[in-house]
Amino acid sequence: MKYSSFEIDGRSTYGVVLGDSVIDLGKRFGHEYADLKALVAAGFPQHVAAAASVPADYALDQIHFLPPIAAPVHIWCLALNYAEHHNEVQSAGRVQELPKSPALFARAADSLVGHDQPLLHPGVSEQFDFEGELVVVIGKPGYRIAAEDAFEHIAGFTIMNEGSVRDWQFHTRQITPGKNFYRSGSIGPWIVPRREIEDVDQLRIRTTLNGQVMQDESVGAMIHKIPRFIEYVSTIAPLYPGDILATGTPSGVGFSRTPPVFMKPGDVCEISIDKIGTLRNTVGRE
Amino acid sequence: MKYSSFEIDGRSTYGVVLGDSVIDLGKRFGHEYADLKALVAAGFPQHVAAAASVPADYALDQIHFLPPIAAPVHIWCLALNYAEHHNEVQSAGRVQELPKSPALFARAADSLVGHDQPLLHPGVSEQFDFEGELVVVIGKPGYRIAAEDAFEHIAGFTIMNEGSVRDWQFHTRQITPGKNFYRSGSIGPWIVPRREIEDVDQLRIRTTLNGQVMQDESVGAMIHKIPRFIEYVSTIAPLYPGDILATGTPSGVGFSRTPPVFMKPGDVCEISIDKIGTLRNTVGRE
Repeated sequence: MKYSSFEIDGRSTYGVVLGDSVIDLGKRFGHEYADLKALVAAGFPQHVAAAASVPADYALDQIHFLPPIAAPVHIWCLALNYAEHHNEVQSAGRVQELPKSPALFARAADSLVGHDQPLLHPGVSEQFDFEGELVVVIGKPGYRIAAEDAFEHIAGFTIMNEGSVRDWQFHTRQITPGKNFYRSGSIGPWIVPRREIEDVDQLRIRTTLNGQVMQDESVGAMIHKIPRFIEYVSTIAPLYPGDILATGTPSGVGFSRTPPVFMKPGDVCEISIDKIGTLRNTVGRE
Repeated sequence: MKYSSFEIDGRSTYGVVLGDSVIDLGKRFGHEYADLKALVAAGFPQHVAAAASVPADYALDQIHFLPPIAAPVHIWCLALNYAEHHNEVQSAGRVQELPKSPALFARAADSLVGHDQPLLHPGVSEQFDFEGELVVVIGKPGYRIAAEDAFEHIAGFTIMNEGSVRDWQFHTRQITPGKNFYRSGSIGPWIVPRREIEDVDQLRIRTTLNGQVMQDESVGAMIHKIPRFIEYVSTIAPLYPGDILATGTPSGVGFSRTPPVFMKPGDVCEISIDKIGTLRNTVGRE
């Protein structure tokens, strides 16, 4: 099941995408679950999922996708969480030891757009880079969660283009500036419930820019696996329903290529993850 | 004028503190301005300020302070923004060049408590350190604000104890983990409107731990001054009313002392800034 947040006729709602059709769950269950975050918190209840068998409300091309969770309490991200990607960053002269702990940073919600919405080129930099990532969406809240209990706290999975402005990322040791440009990244198109994905390590992330494959790696190559990420970050602060955990990007990013490849207005970036789908964005002019 | 958010009889509201008295503005203007963020966005309107001359509603010791802004869109912070503090970090073996750009990172709202609420000792670390900081509260929203226009966007000033868990801060180059422990910092007690502070560079920050002076430095010693901070961060993303900008801590923090000094349960940390006031917190047991 593919749970999306979207706009239709200027109204924000949420629902399920079935092939080329969309079922509006917000229209039916909005009084019970105000938004997709509330539905995630309730664990995608059976009576709501059952409604996804009614005749479709809209065609897929009628809706405008929004980030699945409008206002997460936390958007936690990891840098350098794939060994091959770490190697390419090192080769590009950004020498760092392989991190023993998750290299954690935060993104603000206004740095992310939804599926099919244009990314905003930063304008002040030409080094606008893509990063395909698997995203964990938290369902059950928790604080100081042990790694062995971590999967219980996952509602489902989605995809992020963790768009990065490289020169701003390297102004100081703190990469936060280059990771938070307004509408520089994207998330979606939908959340696929955890139960529908048997083995997350078997998933593969594939990023293309204008149709050319740039990243293609297995999620199994992650350094700090999802249970460790959840344990680490929930030691710092509680996790809440709808919290977003971006698990890091594999190798193949633009700035470590020879010559470097960056996103320009008019480009199309697509990130596909098996069993989840494809997050597609064009790059808009600043 | 001292604008606070607070709880009284289990109800959240906002108002003005006058000596030992409190006037409840939320009770009078809540229909117009839902919270202190809305009042900040409106620029502390004259008809609201005028109501602060009515007889007091409560004694100061009846209220429980909350962070002045409950849910800022952004809480942006700067590391290494005073030269003396940079030197002491360098001496402690954390060698870094003096940053040419603001060393930006983000805090989540749930990492901060209000004035007089207990800080939460992290438990998993003994290296719980204080950082007294001047805080800018944004009033007028803006995107890509020029430094010369920056002061117009400031609603007022408050104080932060940017509480830091040092070993977690240095797990990797990203200091975010040590800067985001749940209830590890504090903000308040109130916002003093910008117009009431003639020259921010003349202010002095003084931090005491159990009555002993630990930090005592002029705001004028800042490396990246407030207009530059606003210009830099608003180039990345828009600033919204109620956004919080913590301007960095002066020298004297606990971890660079010989021997190091850290906060323990039962300790009392106070941060005073001229013309603003004193932010006081005890350290609670985890």
